[in-house]
Amino acid sequence: MLSMDEFSIIKQYFSTISPHRKEVILGIGDDAAGIRVPADQLLLVSTDTLVADVHFKMDWDAYDIASRAVRVNVSDIAAMGGQPVWMVLSLTLPNADQNWLERFSLGLQDQLQAYNMALVGGNLARGPLSITITIHGLVPEQHVVTRHGAQRGDRIYVSGLLGAAAQAVALLKKHSVPEPLMQALLHPKPRVEWRNILQTYATAAIDISDGLLADLNHIATASGLGACLMLDSIPIHPWVQQYQGDHAVEFVLEGGDDYELCFTVSPANEDAMRDALASQGLTAYRIGMMESAKGLRGQKGTQAPILLETKGYQHF
Amino acid sequence: MLSMDEFSIIKQYFSTISPHRKEVILGIGDDAAGIRVPADQLLLVSTDTLVADVHFKMDWDAYDIASRAVRVNVSDIAAMGGQPVWMVLSLTLPNADQNWLERFSLGLQDQLQAYNMALVGGNLARGPLSITITIHGLVPEQHVVTRHGAQRGDRIYVSGLLGAAAQAVALLKKHSVPEPLMQALLHPKPRVEWRNILQTYATAAIDISDGLLADLNHIATASGLGACLMLDSIPIHPWVQQYQGDHAVEFVLEGGDDYELCFTVSPANEDAMRDALASQGLTAYRIGMMESAKGLRGQKGTQAPILLETKGYQHF
Repeated sequence: MLSMDEFSIIKQYFSTISPHRKEVILGIGDDAAGIRVPADQLLLVSTDTLVADVHFKMDWDAYDIASRAVRVNVSDIAAMGGQPVWMVLSLTLPNADQNWLERFSLGLQDQLQAYNMALVGGNLARGPLSITITIHGLVPEQHVVTRHGAQRGDRIYVSGLLGAAAQAVALLKKHSVPEPLMQALLHPKPRVEWRNILQTYATAAIDISDGLLADLNHIATASGLGACLMLDSIPIHPWVQQYQGDHAVEFVLEGGDDYELCFTVSPANEDAMRDALASQGLTAYRIGMMESAKGLRGQKGTQAPILLETKGYQHF
Repeated sequence: MLSMDEFSIIKQYFSTISPHRKEVILGIGDDAAGIRVPADQLLLVSTDTLVADVHFKMDWDAYDIASRAVRVNVSDIAAMGGQPVWMVLSLTLPNADQNWLERFSLGLQDQLQAYNMALVGGNLARGPLSITITIHGLVPEQHVVTRHGAQRGDRIYVSGLLGAAAQAVALLKKHSVPEPLMQALLHPKPRVEWRNILQTYATAAIDISDGLLADLNHIATASGLGACLMLDSIPIHPWVQQYQGDHAVEFVLEGGDDYELCFTVSPANEDAMRDALASQGLTAYRIGMMESAKGLRGQKGTQAPILLETKGYQHF
């Protein structure tokens, strides 16, 4: 571990790791970045913080910490039907550990390349380890997908199997975590490739970070509706089924961190969406329906629906 | 102190404190904000983090912490000749102390109103107290002011008296701090009202956060030049003169946190700028000249220039 000043660290680990994007006319190195926003696009802005010992373990490979930090932010843009384009990074570090910085920088670089995003600025401060990313995305304004557009009768879909990341979190406390589950937690896959589907067919969308129930409840509340889930149709990751057995459905209703998309589609557009999904090699799972009665309900088989409580992730 | 969840806190303390801006079509409450960026403007983006016990004391009034956090970010936009317009806030809190949140929210609201900025989103996490703001500004692209535009022979100016905030920091360690100095530290005045002057006359600019020498050195380095300061002309806050006596000049060369602007102007434009300053009731202080010889020099009276070392604020 060597002593380095802020500017040396930025120069060595952050200044040159980012793809170039032509809209960025002033990148890292001034008081602010300067960006030409395309005139026909809506600017999307979101921010997320990961704090050591809250959102990740101090002893995780810094590569993985960077990967997770970028990906959870990209997911917020994906959930709006947008394309991630630029980000700024605020990194608070207890010290300038060069091995850590090397790994973090590499993890960051790989994500920037993977999502073709420019790192346009940032801040480096001394303090307890935490990472804040503010991400910017673009979407044609008429195609932006919000939480409040769901209509009564819309079908509810999710973009993939649920529960793997939450299962990793549950195991982390006591046991070793099987590699596939740990990968789901460390490297969630923001569903950027669903952009065209969402823009064309979704009436509302959210990414599942706090848990299916909590996040679907955001759509329901924002849209002034309720929802009923077909509990037998919720797609559960096979490892979760194995660990949780009969409690697997309850587990995935509450478990967050998957960053799959939950979205709603008018029944009139379901057939067209299915064709589009097939042509793009994507699979969506229909799990329920928006209803005018407030609250969330769940139904097993042909039993009467029961009220589902939304706990989700409590931040305080 | 009561237990509150993230969404209740956001609703109670953050959702409704912001001025409305017509460009913001999706504000707080979705996965990302959605903003129409005016087509003729360059988007400016900057981020700054304040960490408890590093950048402020835990026991400061949360109103003041919010004020300082917003103002240092606004200053980065001011230094580009821009107008601050929107911000996102990432707040990490050890607990949901409602008195603290109440004061923080009020401080934030007052700054948002003062600078007519919209709070468009944010993040709330549990962890050691820190505040990250990502601020957005607008500036006509042809008028953006960078660090790299200074020319040999350009005159160097600062926008106000220096040293008060640094004097407060120096006193904080041991003594009580006189109110005017504490105000300079808690509520720095980002020089947004200098926007037209900078856009019209400045070849380069920076805000003085790390210290006059360190920040002028950024302009010099970015512009491929050096500079010579007339040490007798550096405007020193009278309280600093009083505390530092013969060492006052050396003190303000190193002392940061003032957030005055340091900028360069072609000698051909000095007369016109002086007229513009007078008509706007602003005072600028000429402190030196950009030179082709690299490095920073200082000159007292008619003595030979001496080399000045740039230490500035070391973050690690």
